[in-house]
Amino acid sequence: MSRFTGYFLMKEGDIPDYVRFEFPDYFDDGAKLSVREIGDGNLNYVFRVVDERSGKSIIVKQAGEQLRISAEMRISTDRNRIESEILLLQDKYAPGLVPRIFKYDTVMCACLMEDLSDHRLMRYALMEHKTFPRFADDITTYMVNTLLNTTDVVMEHKAKKELVKSFINPELCEITEDLIYTEPYNDAKGRNIVTPENLDFVKKELYGDRALHLEIAKLKFDFMNNAQALLHGDLHTGSIFVKEDSTKIFDPEFAFYGPMGYDIGNVIANLFFAWDNGDAAGNGVFCEWTLVTAVEVIDLFRKKFLAEYAKKVTDIMAKTEGFAEYYLGTIIADTAAGAGTELIRRTVGMAQVKDVTTIADRAKRARAERINILCAKDLIMNRAAFKTGDDFVAAFRGAVKAVDAL
Amino acid sequence: MSRFTGYFLMKEGDIPDYVRFEFPDYFDDGAKLSVREIGDGNLNYVFRVVDERSGKSIIVKQAGEQLRISAEMRISTDRNRIESEILLLQDKYAPGLVPRIFKYDTVMCACLMEDLSDHRLMRYALMEHKTFPRFADDITTYMVNTLLNTTDVVMEHKAKKELVKSFINPELCEITEDLIYTEPYNDAKGRNIVTPENLDFVKKELYGDRALHLEIAKLKFDFMNNAQALLHGDLHTGSIFVKEDSTKIFDPEFAFYGPMGYDIGNVIANLFFAWDNGDAAGNGVFCEWTLVTAVEVIDLFRKKFLAEYAKKVTDIMAKTEGFAEYYLGTIIADTAAGAGTELIRRTVGMAQVKDVTTIADRAKRARAERINILCAKDLIMNRAAFKTGDDFVAAFRGAVKAVDAL
Repeated sequence: MSRFTGYFLMKEGDIPDYVRFEFPDYFDDGAKLSVREIGDGNLNYVFRVVDERSGKSIIVKQAGEQLRISAEMRISTDRNRIESEILLLQDKYAPGLVPRIFKYDTVMCACLMEDLSDHRLMRYALMEHKTFPRFADDITTYMVNTLLNTTDVVMEHKAKKELVKSFINPELCEITEDLIYTEPYNDAKGRNIVTPENLDFVKKELYGDRALHLEIAKLKFDFMNNAQALLHGDLHTGSIFVKEDSTKIFDPEFAFYGPMGYDIGNVIANLFFAWDNGDAAGNGVFCEWTLVTAVEVIDLFRKKFLAEYAKKVTDIMAKTEGFAEYYLGTIIADTAAGAGTELIRRTVGMAQVKDVTTIADRAKRARAERINILCAKDLIMNRAAFKTGDDFVAAFRGAVKAVDAL
Repeated sequence: MSRFTGYFLMKEGDIPDYVRFEFPDYFDDGAKLSVREIGDGNLNYVFRVVDERSGKSIIVKQAGEQLRISAEMRISTDRNRIESEILLLQDKYAPGLVPRIFKYDTVMCACLMEDLSDHRLMRYALMEHKTFPRFADDITTYMVNTLLNTTDVVMEHKAKKELVKSFINPELCEITEDLIYTEPYNDAKGRNIVTPENLDFVKKELYGDRALHLEIAKLKFDFMNNAQALLHGDLHTGSIFVKEDSTKIFDPEFAFYGPMGYDIGNVIANLFFAWDNGDAAGNGVFCEWTLVTAVEVIDLFRKKFLAEYAKKVTDIMAKTEGFAEYYLGTIIADTAAGAGTELIRRTVGMAQVKDVTTIADRAKRARAERINILCAKDLIMNRAAFKTGDDFVAAFRGAVKAVDAL
């Protein structure tokens, strides 16, 4: 039973009463609750509720029916159900690496979840050139455990198909299909944002490269059709909370069944964006950390994947000699492609990253963007040749050299 | 509203009343209805209802909850909904090539459909070495229209995802996963049926070939994950009714979103089974027709596919130069694999085909089975090299030569 009988967008003032009704045991009777709306995303309202006496806190996250920046674009509130259900599932597979969900209310499309205010958004911490020694280990544990365990290599096949059905996510997938797999290559809707210094470069390298378009078309339909694993679907450093001794992956509202490499590639690309920012600031130590971490993400993923595969695989044909290595090979190729498409779409698409957009020096920013684009093209066009972490970083270093030689 | 308030398995005596209630306008008031249960499948009950005065008739098809041959295996009656919905959809895409559905009753899991008693089951007609000049043209129209039009290359992407969701078919897909992609290669459940003369041959060529197992594993997970098009899912010559001037494809209860080549390959393999039967009877003219028809099925599919693609494709990236040809190339490779896996599973698996099992001469039957297996392995192992109809028939003729040289 919900506190309310019909959906409406809650205001701060509605929240204390709502929390007490929905989760009566969480706060003491004498609690003095204060509420602040802290959402900075585009789709959701995030209320932080604190008991001023005990300091205890909780988050209420409610899905809106339209984009916060534009009432024109309406989006189904079902994404909040998807997010709550997937966080519950991921908490089972990767305990401690996702925020806890206490309750999901289908009437209000809202959930009560663990408050992670003692963590920081990873992107902002990286923009201060902070390093996180646990990150490669934590993110690869999270990815191997949530991705491999939701495939039909591991899961009972009928149960896996029910999960596929439950996480079909037409509206948010459409956003990805448009923003990642279409517009960066043709500016079809006139929504791209290209820095003036790179207009000709983008015209030639992205809009004018037909061989690239053909590979993107292949990747687009693989993304749309290959129901391999239950992805996070938006695994950039703005979807990760960090503190010294903790990593929490949140905001999986883009979750659906797709190719694993899409998630892993997103992580790699966002480490490269962090490099862009550190390099513009002349912080070589930080830059080195981002690349070493990219190497570790790939190589630890490989190692943990094969270990978990040997332990968990149930399907008899999946146990065929050589299949695990073949399967991992396709995942790493998809990872190269996923990193490439993320590098490109964040550089010329409508949703850019602050790591790059905050580089004040125009020439440095333009250089970073060219590096991202050339690295991306190598990753996409030669994706089948990528195997180890070193291969990925070699592509990035190669792009730096190529741009500096232009 | 249904005639009954709860599901039960109807008997012949229940049917006249049921039909008059469900479809009151179909028969005249004075009609004298006679009913006969004519189902010969394993899952469903098929009642033919005839007005003895006018000759007018209709079919009532009801889904049972267990296999007719074994009460142990229970199967969801939801497959009848899937079948009715897909026939309605296919009637839109390929009018005249599927039986008409008049009504579907969710309570009784039964549908009222067009009576095709003036048609014959194609498999039985082929076993009498009848030829069907319209077949290649009709079946390729059916396949291009029902397959290409249900992809996201053509469909609006969100609508396509809703179709994927609606046709997720865990139980019947599991049968395919076991019987086609697992058991023929290891007899995992002891259900295979191998003719005594071929025991050693099957042990060596199927159970002992690890390179083959690896390719089957790849195909199995592609079958399970690649939500490319809404397949028929069981497109053999026992799912096709024919008469001189008409082809009707029915029984799509295995329908789900999978790789198109699975359907097309099934058609090719079943033409080869017809060859086996004709060859054992020394009917060279019929054999030639089966192979010419296989060539036409591939080549007409290619031609109609590209024409329909040019007309219907909506996705901007799918219009990229070269993509249609790439996409068709993957479909034809999947077709080779689909033909190969069907040839093998019908030869050693638990569900065999009468074209081959009725060959009375033991040596001739064993030879046919070896041809099927060697042809299948060529199709599977070299699937990426298959392009035209001639390539498929060359593989079959090559297998005949190889077996005769053994």
